[in-house]
Amino acid sequence: MERLHADVCVVGAGFAGLAAALQLTRAGCDVVVLEARDRVGGRVWNREMADGTVVSAGGTWLGRGQERMFRLCRDMGLDVYPQYDQGDHILRLDGQNRRYRGAAPHAGPVALAALGLAMLRLNLMARRLPPGEPWRAGGARAWDARTLGQWIGEPLNVPSATARTLLHSAFGVLFCVDPAEVSLLGSLVLARGGGGFGYYTDSRRTETHLVDGGAPELARRMAGRLGDAVRPGCAVRQITENVYDVEVRSDELAVRAQRVIVATPPVLAGRIAFDPPLPVAHAQLRQRLVPGAIIRVHTTYPAPFWRGRGLSGQTLAPQSPVAVTIDQTPRSGRPGVLSSYAFGTAALKVARLAPERRRQMWLEALAERFGPEALEPLAYLETDWSAQPWSLGGMIAHFPPGALTGYGEALREPVGRIHWAGTESATLMHGLMEGAVRSGERAATEVLAVLAPSRRPVARR
Amino acid sequence: MERLHADVCVVGAGFAGLAAALQLTRAGCDVVVLEARDRVGGRVWNREMADGTVVSAGGTWLGRGQERMFRLCRDMGLDVYPQYDQGDHILRLDGQNRRYRGAAPHAGPVALAALGLAMLRLNLMARRLPPGEPWRAGGARAWDARTLGQWIGEPLNVPSATARTLLHSAFGVLFCVDPAEVSLLGSLVLARGGGGFGYYTDSRRTETHLVDGGAPELARRMAGRLGDAVRPGCAVRQITENVYDVEVRSDELAVRAQRVIVATPPVLAGRIAFDPPLPVAHAQLRQRLVPGAIIRVHTTYPAPFWRGRGLSGQTLAPQSPVAVTIDQTPRSGRPGVLSSYAFGTAALKVARLAPERRRQMWLEALAERFGPEALEPLAYLETDWSAQPWSLGGMIAHFPPGALTGYGEALREPVGRIHWAGTESATLMHGLMEGAVRSGERAATEVLAVLAPSRRPVARR
Repeated sequence: MERLHADVCVVGAGFAGLAAALQLTRAGCDVVVLEARDRVGGRVWNREMADGTVVSAGGTWLGRGQERMFRLCRDMGLDVYPQYDQGDHILRLDGQNRRYRGAAPHAGPVALAALGLAMLRLNLMARRLPPGEPWRAGGARAWDARTLGQWIGEPLNVPSATARTLLHSAFGVLFCVDPAEVSLLGSLVLARGGGGFGYYTDSRRTETHLVDGGAPELARRMAGRLGDAVRPGCAVRQITENVYDVEVRSDELAVRAQRVIVATPPVLAGRIAFDPPLPVAHAQLRQRLVPGAIIRVHTTYPAPFWRGRGLSGQTLAPQSPVAVTIDQTPRSGRPGVLSSYAFGTAALKVARLAPERRRQMWLEALAERFGPEALEPLAYLETDWSAQPWSLGGMIAHFPPGALTGYGEALREPVGRIHWAGTESATLMHGLMEGAVRSGERAATEVLAVLAPSRRPVARR
Repeated sequence: MERLHADVCVVGAGFAGLAAALQLTRAGCDVVVLEARDRVGGRVWNREMADGTVVSAGGTWLGRGQERMFRLCRDMGLDVYPQYDQGDHILRLDGQNRRYRGAAPHAGPVALAALGLAMLRLNLMARRLPPGEPWRAGGARAWDARTLGQWIGEPLNVPSATARTLLHSAFGVLFCVDPAEVSLLGSLVLARGGGGFGYYTDSRRTETHLVDGGAPELARRMAGRLGDAVRPGCAVRQITENVYDVEVRSDELAVRAQRVIVATPPVLAGRIAFDPPLPVAHAQLRQRLVPGAIIRVHTTYPAPFWRGRGLSGQTLAPQSPVAVTIDQTPRSGRPGVLSSYAFGTAALKVARLAPERRRQMWLEALAERFGPEALEPLAYLETDWSAQPWSLGGMIAHFPPGALTGYGEALREPVGRIHWAGTESATLMHGLMEGAVRSGERAATEVLAVLAPSRRPVARR
């Protein structure tokens, strides 16, 4: 068993952990980052396809107001390039492709009005949440006893069947689960942190740019700055708090530190053996914050052929297992890359198909929207996040009913020498890479404020 | 690493695992039972108090129609004795003790009528669930998108504030969480398996008898019949399915078997590393079935002094952290034993108090109902089930919204050589010890039906 000493140990080398470690290192702290996977980036991951194309298979896009991510790209010498947004999007509904532009699909005036009003009402509710303390909102208990699925399923709230279908699908995309699993209050936390749900559902706001080389390259470069401090392949099993320090143990490596920042997905944090045990609220909250299911498929073509037909590559198909597609072609324009997705229970059903059958079904779904050329990609790559043992699903953990009002304060509250980061703990840009970075910086700031004076280092910069 | 071979490996030596192992052994199978704790019984546990009294600190009572449990007691040579049911119960509401008898507390005629009607409506809904397949009920999706907390909180459903308070408390007791966490459909599964919610809330039906020596003694004797086949201290980490068998590994011991029955609480089953990985629906369901919080306190007195005052020892106090008490005096009548409980978020708050403060608060809550004698017990013992790493809470895992309609079929469906038991998978007597035994027998029957003919043994009895 290798033993290390550090001022701070960070568990998890996703954006939250990396951002925390970088800020602490800049302030002069000795940091060790333990990462279970054999790579950094967490839910952000570059994969190589059979034709040699490298695709970002997890968090990929940057959007408006995501100043940390854009700044990190600059700091790490990475360019960004704009998302392709020319041409028409497609809404596929009842077997028909309907072209549209902008945020609002062509679903008829009644549906659009119902959609707009529902979003407005939800956003107004979200604005009533005290930032970072949604459980203190007037009506929080009632909203936390309801599900988002029920709210959007009620004709009184959304007086159009088409609008209900679209909302059900849109929220299924955001949370990767049926909206029936999501607390109404919990869903509003997302809206609150982005200035409204529209931030998340309008690609012109949340998917404006891609990172040249992929967002995972940014994580790789951040880890590069930290050098040997980042230790992949070290799954943390136990965190023991002592009087004068805390010990963080993986199978191969034990780190003694003044403080630890746990920056893993919540459900994985809950599987670490804490000694003494976590307060029950902290433990129970982390048991309850589980992710949904997402299968993402990348297909490459000699060129982004859809562009020549006036299509953006972006499609919505609420009734298809492949609910969403988007153009993910690299800056060079070659090859053409389509990213397509199945979410929630649709992803579960798709996962049960035999691989050949799944590929066939998937490509046919693309061909219905883009024509027969979609049937013959240069390469086809599936990423099933539920099968990743250090993610257990994607994209984020949602708040189930009762969690925020029952245990919400345990989300960020430190326990002795243990601090918490991760995009699920972010108040602004919750659920996004930007939220992860912000949560890591917040945790690092907490730690810097309390580090024992004798260990408090002088800032280097 | 010790290596064993068996026809069947059972994971977990609670009542489900023990019942499965006994049935398989009787049919002539070689069985190995791996148990993570250093004792058998699982959520059923005998503890010794400071005054030497041994108390059952987990599942304790038998009730009407629980034929498996009564028969097991007979088979294992254990007597049962009736629960003390003389005298008045107490409902403590708004600072006042109100005595009552029977199932219906003295809460005024309006509250009682509202209570009765609500229960009737819930039971009628429960009767519409196809046994074992609640997700197929007409309206299942809508019920699974609602929470029990919202349903009972709606004045239209329960037109009396007192009745709403009582229902909120009663369901908090049953599920050990705020009813806002529980799917309306999921809650109906409990009612369906007991013939109505009344089965669970009426102590004259569900708490009629105690086991002499405690229900844990029954588990100990069942394990005794299995002899060396039961291996405590073996926490299963990995289950690998091969073409011809399955390997079950703990840190010290590896078992190769034809089949494995996983009979642990669902969330712990979900933490085992399965190779190949479980189908996503199976994995996600088990992540979502988490238990609530329960702190149980036993206090002993020279005699059950409350009986002399015409009190049964049973109290309800929806507004107190100590929501429920019940007489748990042994058959001999000495010492007097009171069992008292905090549930859900109340238990979380109680757990945060300093131990001396908690004891003081708790005894004062008892004294409000039973008089100052309650303040000076011979012994006082707390059992916080959330702090038990092989339970993570109590008493059972509830179904959160969306779980049954999203993943319900994965509850019992075998995966290759892997079968599932546990009271959460029971259709009849779901959530009770009786349900655990029935689930174990069902899993054993499944396994016996599919064991490879060459390995199928001749029954011994």
